[in-house]
Amino acid sequence: MNTQARQSANTGLAFGYAQTRAYSLELIRGLSAEDCQLQSMPDASPLKWHLAHTTWFFETFVLGALPSPPDPVDPRYRVLFNSYYVGIGERHLRAERGLLSRPSLEEILHYRKQVDHQMQELLAHPAQLAPLTELVTLGLQHEQQHQELMLTDLKHHFSCNPLHPAWRDRAPEQPDERAVTQPVTFRTFAGGLCGIGAPAGGFSYDNEGPRHRVWLEPFQLAERNVSNGDFLAFIADGGYQRPELWLSDGWDWVCQDHAACPLYWQHADQQWQLFTLAGLQPLNHAAPLCHVNLYEADAFARWSGGRLPTEAEWEHAAQNAPDLAGLFGQVWQWTNSAYLPYPGYQPASGAVGEYNGKFMINQMVLRGSSCATPAGHSRNSYRNFFPAAAQWQFSGIRLARDS
Amino acid sequence: MNTQARQSANTGLAFGYAQTRAYSLELIRGLSAEDCQLQSMPDASPLKWHLAHTTWFFETFVLGALPSPPDPVDPRYRVLFNSYYVGIGERHLRAERGLLSRPSLEEILHYRKQVDHQMQELLAHPAQLAPLTELVTLGLQHEQQHQELMLTDLKHHFSCNPLHPAWRDRAPEQPDERAVTQPVTFRTFAGGLCGIGAPAGGFSYDNEGPRHRVWLEPFQLAERNVSNGDFLAFIADGGYQRPELWLSDGWDWVCQDHAACPLYWQHADQQWQLFTLAGLQPLNHAAPLCHVNLYEADAFARWSGGRLPTEAEWEHAAQNAPDLAGLFGQVWQWTNSAYLPYPGYQPASGAVGEYNGKFMINQMVLRGSSCATPAGHSRNSYRNFFPAAAQWQFSGIRLARDS
Amino acid sequence: MNTQARQSANTGLAFGYAQTRAYSLELIRGLSAEDCQLQSMPDASPLKWHLAHTTWFFETFVLGALPSPPDPVDPRYRVLFNSYYVGIGERHLRAERGLLSRPSLEEILHYRKQVDHQMQELLAHPAQLAPLTELVTLGLQHEQQHQELMLTDLKHHFSCNPLHPAWRDRAPEQPDERAVTQPVTFRTFAGGLCGIGAPAGGFSYDNEGPRHRVWLEPFQLAERNVSNGDFLAFIADGGYQRPELWLSDGWDWVCQDHAACPLYWQHADQQWQLFTLAGLQPLNHAAPLCHVNLYEADAFARWSGGRLPTEAEWEHAAQNAPDLAGLFGQVWQWTNSAYLPYPGYQPASGAVGEYNGKFMINQMVLRGSSCATPAGHSRNSYRNFFPAAAQWQFSGIRLARDS
Amino acid sequence: MNTQARQSANTGLAFGYAQTRAYSLELIRGLSAEDCQLQSMPDASPLKWHLAHTTWFFETFVLGALPSPPDPVDPRYRVLFNSYYVGIGERHLRAERGLLSRPSLEEILHYRKQVDHQMQELLAHPAQLAPLTELVTLGLQHEQQHQELMLTDLKHHFSCNPLHPAWRDRAPEQPDERAVTQPVTFRTFAGGLCGIGAPAGGFSYDNEGPRHRVWLEPFQLAERNVSNGDFLAFIADGGYQRPELWLSDGWDWVCQDHAACPLYWQHADQQWQLFTLAGLQPLNHAAPLCHVNLYEADAFARWSGGRLPTEAEWEHAAQNAPDLAGLFGQVWQWTNSAYLPYPGYQPASGAVGEYNGKFMINQMVLRGSSCATPAGHSRNSYRNFFPAAAQWQFSGIRLARDS
Repeated sequence: MNTQARQSANTGLAFGYAQTRAYSLELIRGLSAEDCQLQSMPDASPLKWHLAHTTWFFETFVLGALPSPPDPVDPRYRVLFNSYYVGIGERHLRAERGLLSRPSLEEILHYRKQVDHQMQELLAHPAQLAPLTELVTLGLQHEQQHQELMLTDLKHHFSCNPLHPAWRDRAPEQPDERAVTQPVTFRTFAGGLCGIGAPAGGFSYDNEGPRHRVWLEPFQLAERNVSNGDFLAFIADGGYQRPELWLSDGWDWVCQDHAACPLYWQHADQQWQLFTLAGLQPLNHAAPLCHVNLYEADAFARWSGGRLPTEAEWEHAAQNAPDLAGLFGQVWQWTNSAYLPYPGYQPASGAVGEYNGKFMINQMVLRGSSCATPAGHSRNSYRNFFPAAAQWQFSGIRLARDS
Repeated sequence: MNTQARQSANTGLAFGYAQTRAYSLELIRGLSAEDCQLQSMPDASPLKWHLAHTTWFFETFVLGALPSPPDPVDPRYRVLFNSYYVGIGERHLRAERGLLSRPSLEEILHYRKQVDHQMQELLAHPAQLAPLTELVTLGLQHEQQHQELMLTDLKHHFSCNPLHPAWRDRAPEQPDERAVTQPVTFRTFAGGLCGIGAPAGGFSYDNEGPRHRVWLEPFQLAERNVSNGDFLAFIADGGYQRPELWLSDGWDWVCQDHAACPLYWQHADQQWQLFTLAGLQPLNHAAPLCHVNLYEADAFARWSGGRLPTEAEWEHAAQNAPDLAGLFGQVWQWTNSAYLPYPGYQPASGAVGEYNGKFMINQMVLRGSSCATPAGHSRNSYRNFFPAAAQWQFSGIRLARDS
Repeated sequence: MNTQARQSANTGLAFGYAQTRAYSLELIRGLSAEDCQLQSMPDASPLKWHLAHTTWFFETFVLGALPSPPDPVDPRYRVLFNSYYVGIGERHLRAERGLLSRPSLEEILHYRKQVDHQMQELLAHPAQLAPLTELVTLGLQHEQQHQELMLTDLKHHFSCNPLHPAWRDRAPEQPDERAVTQPVTFRTFAGGLCGIGAPAGGFSYDNEGPRHRVWLEPFQLAERNVSNGDFLAFIADGGYQRPELWLSDGWDWVCQDHAACPLYWQHADQQWQLFTLAGLQPLNHAAPLCHVNLYEADAFARWSGGRLPTEAEWEHAAQNAPDLAGLFGQVWQWTNSAYLPYPGYQPASGAVGEYNGKFMINQMVLRGSSCATPAGHSRNSYRNFFPAAAQWQFSGIRLARDS
Repeated sequence: MNTQARQSANTGLAFGYAQTRAYSLELIRGLSAEDCQLQSMPDASPLKWHLAHTTWFFETFVLGALPSPPDPVDPRYRVLFNSYYVGIGERHLRAERGLLSRPSLEEILHYRKQVDHQMQELLAHPAQLAPLTELVTLGLQHEQQHQELMLTDLKHHFSCNPLHPAWRDRAPEQPDERAVTQPVTFRTFAGGLCGIGAPAGGFSYDNEGPRHRVWLEPFQLAERNVSNGDFLAFIADGGYQRPELWLSDGWDWVCQDHAACPLYWQHADQQWQLFTLAGLQPLNHAAPLCHVNLYEADAFARWSGGRLPTEAEWEHAAQNAPDLAGLFGQVWQWTNSAYLPYPGYQPASGAVGEYNGKFMINQMVLRGSSCATPAGHSRNSYRNFFPAAAQWQFSGIRLARDS
């Protein structure tokens, strides 16, 4: 890059920083300090923790990498807001994040301001910034990822309150009340030797690379995601009562959980209702099905005569047929691929190398993005991953078939 | 009672109401809404829940018993703030009290004000009040009981925060930094046929009666409670490593919990520290030992060559020797009596009959009162009760011996 | 005792030894080595373990106390067959007793024979025996206690087999198929200052003493035990669906266990069946109710307008009214007394002091004896004890009332 | 096939049947009925259950498919010995298999004889046999699979007995006491478009097909399996104390399990010992490392600078370099591939379709075979699979590297 290009990139970075950081605050607009402290389960963190942890990330990995790093805003935050980086030292217990009334939300917002101030200083000094731009970008992507989790987690927290609190007036899960779905149709792909993984240039997480070849047999992918109405037919056909439709672990989950519908669905007064980010709402049949786990996705696919795509199939299709409806912005789409390293995968060096690689076991890949994903955080090669039983993400289904 | 006496009693009740209700608010002075929402374990409720539940008690049992009860402040609170009264209907899950960011602390304080307003009206109308005075008194005693629990629970909540938050500047657990303890001496009681249980007149819970006779063999009771220093000698003598000192369940608890000292004790930098309501403090050897469970109390007693008193011994001694040091206001004193009904016990009628009787199993009795007990909530016949493993109450030890 | 008396006592002891030891073998008549190895839950031991442990007791506490003790039959048995005596050293894990295919049943029977041989030698030598007669008697009482547990445990083991194996042709639980029950009537006792606990002379466990005075208010005790038919009326009246009838812990147990009838009852083909030691049988309405826990006993008593007796009431009545039907030989009768030491209680010295005292917490007392208790193992002062939730003992209900 | 070929094939099948069935009995030679009933954990079944279940397989799927199937030997076995085939109806609980003292081992051996008799009749009638040959072959492969599990499970059962029982005099895990290992060297493979999966002809499970193409990057595979000595260096280097070497779930496992060495290793008297099928033995440094789970395998690989192979890499190498030492007959080799369906995978039709497909989640693939695998049950395309935490299989490590 020449000087001008770098300057413009830096300006872009400063702008992106301001915008991304501001959006985290926009997400808690209207919420109280009490709301921001909720933790309904170990997997779902308090919103104030997300706000602090994303700040800690910049303080630790970016500012901390400066030749003369500034004093930490509060040295005790180093432990409190470390999520899982053993390279950084001790961490506060994940399940006890909801027990931190101190520091208060106000103190955490103050922490954000101070780190923002230090970061803005850095962003204004190209020479200092130069070796750190990649880490800054990683920090922003990291914060975007947590922005989605803030909504995911808040929804779960609020769902435990019998008063059904609402985050916003309109539910992003069911944006269009008058939508109508057509029967599912399939697009055919010829397969062959295909390129998969993040291309050179542009940001990507280490787990999206290296780009490599895979051989694909011909396959078909649905033109749209499965809708609530589609899934009602599965339920009506006894889907949750028929073990032959389920993976063995899935059927165990159904029995232990007494599962009979997706998470956040309730049947009352002879109609289905949905707990959304706007509170309880009547179920919209045309909206994309959301909050199913892999077991439910797999059972539905088997029932429908199809299957889930592999992640390679999904990515290949997204490269060749970006016009497929709902690839991005509706629901994360379960694939039947385990989250494992690509051939030649190397974790980033240093503590940020713990970002992805050490979770490559016992999880399945989801592709696309959801209604809760921040703008600009979607790409074809993005690999989201959760355990097969997880329901609280904005996760749905796109069907595939052998061709 | 004649009219004047009743009027004066009513004035006293109104005064007591105002005072008791105000003291609950005094307890949260300096705490944030976030602090008041903490729930560190299912047994320990958020402070805002205590504030709402004690209000619910008046609204449900007193105002609800009026010929024309006022509209409930919020009908949804009926379920949310019911603790365990099945006679009143459904309850919100105990373990999920910490998940109620709504209603906010502010709304709960508003709820208190509105119920206080309705109660003050009632307290000013002798005719309406007359049939309800006992329930009002019960409500005030109930609120006092929760005032102690507010401190007990807050201490546990705060103890989970590595920042060691403090409630007040001075720790009620170690009031006198220059205190010195003398060796324990014992007072002898002759026993015989003794009267136990609440005498007629004055308030008592149903579980304190009926007053009845018990036969006591001669016994001795320690002149003071066990101190931190006494217990250090037990630890130094391998107390937590010697199974022969422990009840079988107690030893199982030691092994599972890896117990090596009382709750809230920490050993760091070669000295013992104590987490108190004023944060971390050096351990005061002369202060009364606190936060041991019955297993620890029993093991210490066996190690010292004594035993725990029965509740009848304790009560008999308190009646005859009120000058024994620390009977009240230091620590609840474990007895070796199970919490069971007295001969002829009858629970109060109606839903308030669930207050005590249904917990008469799997718990042990503690007597006296603690540094966290509100003034005026102590009496000789008072029966506190907790499971043998409970440590988070302000519970200590007074030794007994056969004579 | 003069020489002749002692000689005759010794002959009696030798006779008792032979008889008691033989009865343990009689209990496994018809069972296979596989049957004797079953362990259906940690609380219920394999029959072969009982056979070995009772032998270990004699080898360790009697033969081991001789001036020149014989070599142990197998030194490894010291750990394997120690139940809970920490004074003796390590123990094999209780929950893993069912994993000991070695030593085989045959080897254990051989172990019994060898220890019997050594014991018979001792029993034939009055001088050596003299200081050990009490320990021998304790060993025999201990073996009798395990004889009841053998049947209790075997019943539970077999109940897990869908083939419903039978131990004998006739069920001791329902001895008389043509029995008819009359409505329950009550006997009145005046109470007062009563003597409780094992009298001097004759064997008793340390927990039955010392004999002491207790004050009893007047009370009534039922003339017979509750029958299956009585309990059916409780079930029919919604007994298992009405929380107001239950202790709080009891109701939690009902909900968690989905309890709807006593252990071993099954409803099939529109009739109640009972799993017994003779396999599945139609429920005999007139037979004494068995296999209820304290929660069920307490709820039934509350429903019936009565209560459970205290252990002092039961023992006093048994002394004064031994003609009450079913005091012994039917079912152990739950009392509402916690298992705690009597005034002045001292555990026996040495490792046998661990027999009783260290279990004096979190258990409730049962009195009488059951259809599975060996002849000669019943007495008025006998204190059996189990946790409130235990159902697998032969435990039933005798009602009491205030007079 | 012409008549002669078929006749000869049938003779072969009858011979294979006799041989395979006899080998199951050979495995229990020297074991008692008590040994054969042990169940040390839900995952490990009693040997008598294996003997019955493999027989049930023939009775249900082969004899049951005849036009006029013989009466079942005992209709109750249909439920008792069904492992997981929901298509066949109810099953007895896996965790309670060890509670079946009835039917006895003797009765199960009788059951085997009767089914063998019926099967031999069938095997002697070519016309009847013709449509069932595939199912008979499947039944024999199934029995061979259980033969390995019999040893795997027996080892675990016996390991819980402090007497360290031995199955045989010589341990198959450490066959050669004088073996010496050389430093590991690697063989290079060029990769490219490779064929994977069972070729046509010859038996294979449905999960081994269809054969299909995969693209492989160049890679290297170790010439031998990791030895005990290799793994000692990992332990000595703090392998179990360094979180950076472990997958996140793996490190959680280490902490919860307090893992510090592979399963069956014990450190005593300053030397390592190994519990084997011949009892406790000194650890042979040159023998192949066994009984590690995927977490341990992955951590060792990371520590050594390598990685685990994918299953495609392993299979490709086995096709091209069958001379690699220890591909078969030593230890199953963990791959870093999740157990998922191949492209175009179709489960077999009918209830036997439940054999493999429904387990394709939350498991990792192992390749090769072990010292416990019966002769003739190894092939290049064989896919063994277990959860990442499983240690009780004969599982070890072959390293791979990027080329």
